[in-house]
Amino acid sequence: MKAGVLGSGMVGQAISARLAELGHDVMIGTRDPDKLSEWHAPHKDVKIGSFAETAEHGEIVLNATNGVGSLEALNLAGEANLNGKILVDIAEPLDFSMGMPPSLFVSNTDSLGEQIQRAFPQVKVVKTLNTVTANVMVYPRNVANGDHQVFVSGNDAQAKAQVVDILKSFGWIHILDLGDLTTARATEMYIAIWLRMWGALGTGMFNIKLMK
Amino acid sequence: MKAGVLGSGMVGQAISARLAELGHDVMIGTRDPDKLSEWHAPHKDVKIGSFAETAEHGEIVLNATNGVGSLEALNLAGEANLNGKILVDIAEPLDFSMGMPPSLFVSNTDSLGEQIQRAFPQVKVVKTLNTVTANVMVYPRNVANGDHQVFVSGNDAQAKAQVVDILKSFGWIHILDLGDLTTARATEMYIAIWLRMWGALGTGMFNIKLMK
Repeated sequence: MKAGVLGSGMVGQAISARLAELGHDVMIGTRDPDKLSEWHAPHKDVKIGSFAETAEHGEIVLNATNGVGSLEALNLAGEANLNGKILVDIAEPLDFSMGMPPSLFVSNTDSLGEQIQRAFPQVKVVKTLNTVTANVMVYPRNVANGDHQVFVSGNDAQAKAQVVDILKSFGWIHILDLGDLTTARATEMYIAIWLRMWGALGTGMFNIKLMK
Repeated sequence: MKAGVLGSGMVGQAISARLAELGHDVMIGTRDPDKLSEWHAPHKDVKIGSFAETAEHGEIVLNATNGVGSLEALNLAGEANLNGKILVDIAEPLDFSMGMPPSLFVSNTDSLGEQIQRAFPQVKVVKTLNTVTANVMVYPRNVANGDHQVFVSGNDAQAKAQVVDILKSFGWIHILDLGDLTTARATEMYIAIWLRMWGALGTGMFNIKLMK
């Protein structure tokens, strides 16, 4: 699979490295390739490109940019390079402008995932992985041998099924389809309690398991 | 312990019955005592009173009113009847005015728990139990034998310790102190994903467990 990963922070690096490790043809998109030089040395199998080159490269595109810059990054990526494709949206609508912990710049009656879907109506947005830290996203077995939960939200059932296959390839066992993309509000708002649990536990290497 | 439970819906009934079952001297507060006649028949050990009588009765007071009416109910209860006491706030700031699922009428940078604390500065507000359905609140062992999480938020460490003791008496095993009352934002916002999990699972008899 040809994958384009937009964003070169911790999440973009982790996703890109993991997809390459799994044998995919990966390009990571960044405004600043120099920033990636150290990371790239042991990850030569990952191509580096602009946002537009990366979106064009991907049969599937993953949004791992900072939430506050996601729409701008996707505009740079270009609608023509995104249309018809699955966009796995991992971004969080975090607002650090009022101090720590961050609040959300969109929530409750809307979500970043929905904002992206409205801006790019011909893209199949699937929100997932935004409820755990980068390492857990791509190596879920690193926490409790994978015995915990990840969620998917999106309007296109086939796109969600493809994303579920990618999640399984990462090692995810418990994958819950919450419904259409309005359910991204729920996983984005969950970051508030995730941040507080992180504060109370002193580590991001945790997740929640559904108990019935 | 003399407990005053404000609110006579499902949560108020469940909390009152459970506290009485555990041997406490319980009064349930309602605007409409007639509404409770059927429920009261098998729960004669629970007294019924007005909001003010109930707050006066309680050495500890529990807010189980609908979130949208909580501040009004607490005003009826009367500041003089509440001051100096622990107020266990279980209410959710649910807004049903825009249809289902409900959104929150306060969230992100504020919470209902904090609104109550600001309105009643001499009350020790402890937010808890608002992340599970009524039956699980009071009988946590009914889900996975109690192997799941409840949270407490509040500004007064001693008040939180007393509430933790009550939670343990209900059967709670895993109780995480998230910090001061600003962390009530997190547990109140969690209701968004709780509602979506409820929708996906088709039952409210579930909870989350922290996995490390």
